[in-house]
Amino acid sequence: MKRTSRDIRTANRYEVLRQIIAESPTSRQELAAATGLSLATVATLVGELLDLGLITEVGFEDSAGGRPRGLVAANASGGALIGVDIAETYVHVELFDLALNVLARSDEDMRAGESRPEQVVRHVAAGIGSVAARAGIEAARVLGVGVSVPGQVDRDTGVAEYAPNLGWHDVPLLGLLAEHIAHPLYLDNPLRACTVAELWFGAARGRGDAVVVNLGTGVGAGLALGGGLHRGVSNSAGEWGHTTLVLDGRLCHCGNHGCVETYVGAPGIMQNLRELSPRSPLLHPDDQTATIDALARAAAGDDPVALGVVRETARHLGAGISDLINLLNPEVVVLSSWVAARLGEPLLGEVRRAVARHALRRPLAATEIVLSPIPTDPVCLGAATFALEGALRSAGQRAAKRTTTARGRTAPPS
Amino acid sequence: MKRTSRDIRTANRYEVLRQIIAESPTSRQELAAATGLSLATVATLVGELLDLGLITEVGFEDSAGGRPRGLVAANASGGALIGVDIAETYVHVELFDLALNVLARSDEDMRAGESRPEQVVRHVAAGIGSVAARAGIEAARVLGVGVSVPGQVDRDTGVAEYAPNLGWHDVPLLGLLAEHIAHPLYLDNPLRACTVAELWFGAARGRGDAVVVNLGTGVGAGLALGGGLHRGVSNSAGEWGHTTLVLDGRLCHCGNHGCVETYVGAPGIMQNLRELSPRSPLLHPDDQTATIDALARAAAGDDPVALGVVRETARHLGAGISDLINLLNPEVVVLSSWVAARLGEPLLGEVRRAVARHALRRPLAATEIVLSPIPTDPVCLGAATFALEGALRSAGQRAAKRTTTARGRTAPPS
Ligand SMILES: [Zn+2]
Ligand SMILES: [Zn+2]
Repeated sequence: MKRTSRDIRTANRYEVLRQIIAESPTSRQELAAATGLSLATVATLVGELLDLGLITEVGFEDSAGGRPRGLVAANASGGALIGVDIAETYVHVELFDLALNVLARSDEDMRAGESRPEQVVRHVAAGIGSVAARAGIEAARVLGVGVSVPGQVDRDTGVAEYAPNLGWHDVPLLGLLAEHIAHPLYLDNPLRACTVAELWFGAARGRGDAVVVNLGTGVGAGLALGGGLHRGVSNSAGEWGHTTLVLDGRLCHCGNHGCVETYVGAPGIMQNLRELSPRSPLLHPDDQTATIDALARAAAGDDPVALGVVRETARHLGAGISDLINLLNPEVVVLSSWVAARLGEPLLGEVRRAVARHALRRPLAATEIVLSPIPTDPVCLGAATFALEGALRSAGQRAAKRTTTARGRTAPPS
Repeated sequence: MKRTSRDIRTANRYEVLRQIIAESPTSRQELAAATGLSLATVATLVGELLDLGLITEVGFEDSAGGRPRGLVAANASGGALIGVDIAETYVHVELFDLALNVLARSDEDMRAGESRPEQVVRHVAAGIGSVAARAGIEAARVLGVGVSVPGQVDRDTGVAEYAPNLGWHDVPLLGLLAEHIAHPLYLDNPLRACTVAELWFGAARGRGDAVVVNLGTGVGAGLALGGGLHRGVSNSAGEWGHTTLVLDGRLCHCGNHGCVETYVGAPGIMQNLRELSPRSPLLHPDDQTATIDALARAAAGDDPVALGVVRETARHLGAGISDLINLLNPEVVVLSSWVAARLGEPLLGEVRRAVARHALRRPLAATEIVLSPIPTDPVCLGAATFALEGALRSAGQRAAKRTTTARGRTAPPS
């Protein structure tokens, strides 16, 4: 519930590592300036990260008139992290070094009806084997595997509780994966993975409160409040896709009517197209990806039907994003995931116009709406970041134990 | 943006004082158990609060087999706080001791057309004079005055930026008040005042994330996340009343259509009544308070029209509260302010049923919906709490300065 000194120390350790990864090489002085922490605190945290092998000393820079400053950088070769993005239509696996550079990736498509848990587990295991082999990484050097699966997850028990677009209920996913994969496993969902990716490496880095609007088959809003991920009391915060935008509107698979997702998720956008132009050649009835791709290409060529669909989608999306702005008063709203990436600037422009019509003046003036600047799959990146956070947590616990023991040994007799 | 060690110290100091006020007398051991802080931290914070005169030692209790434990309590006579609730139809002023007991109150009604800033300022000044005189409190003992005004406020500059139900734009309220009132003044809005009141004294105390749904003429949702008030980047978070529930629905004075407020604020409820039964004797066309009172009485007597209005209001309110539950995953949702207080249990029951139909299973299971347990005006109480927080902040700064000076004086020569 309450944030303790230990939470703060953990958050500060993340913050310093995040800054080093983003700005390598950097000095303790620059880190203090960028994070707002004292130089003494930064020096302590840098020392811990050096001891853990996550960062490394890389030389000195001259400071004007003073003594040279030591530079540190992410220790790229200190280990590897794997991020897994299980979506409704594919399984992506990426292997990263500790500077979060992608060293290898594997994409496996899933056809409709191929998404039973045991089939997905086989895809994931094959993907992990493939990226490790291609990157030439020994198993022992993988610090952890972060796994993202849509819907509501219990990250403590590793259970995918409810993933309607996959048709899953209470699937013990981490247990199934552990039969094939020996690395430490960390489960969460794409919403929180994207949000953490933006916090560490994207548009939310160093900003105040941020909302990451995730537009894919499903829809959600990751909340980065006070510099950290807002999870809620049972780790299910962010289900903005299932908030009501049109009372008594379109039926949603959650049982509710008029949910945001039914208008701005990929199937909702297909429905917008169907209602505007039932026989449009842009519509690929059984293929979300092909339809969104066709819409994006046609909108870029000023096709009036495609532009109409983008506008109608943005009308709903803008009203929903205005709700987030009025309720949460964020500094930045980031549009993320594959639908946002493909519809890109035309969607962004229409959304900004719709938000300007809906949102209240004061919170509107404080907010910027941007497309995610992350060039790779943000879900894999965020999932790998969960693995990095997990590795940092357990390494920190081991280090604390060692320090206590060492102190005990070297303490002067009293 | 980021929470620093200083923020944490401030939050911990509030938390300990809050616990002492709620549970006086109490021991340091009980405080440590209730707050989750270490006994050493609690002892330090208790020492500071004793030095500031906000709490006092009140004796000892025997602990089983150990040495007696010192008990502390709020120092009721250590000073006075004033809370001012400026609403569309009244100005309430309450004077509190430091245990936040009400010592005197003043209620002034405002008729339509009487709410120009200078008229309101006169009401506030008269109210403050009246409560101080009735409580027999010297001016010097008033530590501060918290003032709540509806709408969007800039608490740093003391400007009421936008209060649509009062017809105010950019009113320099604290400046106007300072011409009549010599005490330190603290401005905020009813939403945040109610939320802080619930955090310190009500249903959110000691709970995880909480949402305080404020139902009056205007409507909002105060967010108590991670044990503190979520303000957003420009102190305007919580404008849930102006989130869209019915796209293209009822016109709202904010310029948007279908805002939550237009269905569940007092004027929205009057409209619900008008649509259900245009000639109902329950309707007092120019009097919100009388209409809500009439509805409450009739609903208690099972009047079918009144019950229909409550049900229709709860249908919208339930959908909107489900949105908050799905998005934020709070531990508790508190219904507060005068409309919720008057419609009470019949409204609460219907809202719970509507939420059970709308919200997702996992966040629904983690949430409880309750009526505010605060028996007095929660806005006055919250406003007085802002004044207490302000007094604590500036006393803390003075104390820190004194400690530094004292240390400097008594430090041994080196
Ligand atoms: Zn839904
Ligand atoms: Zn509105």
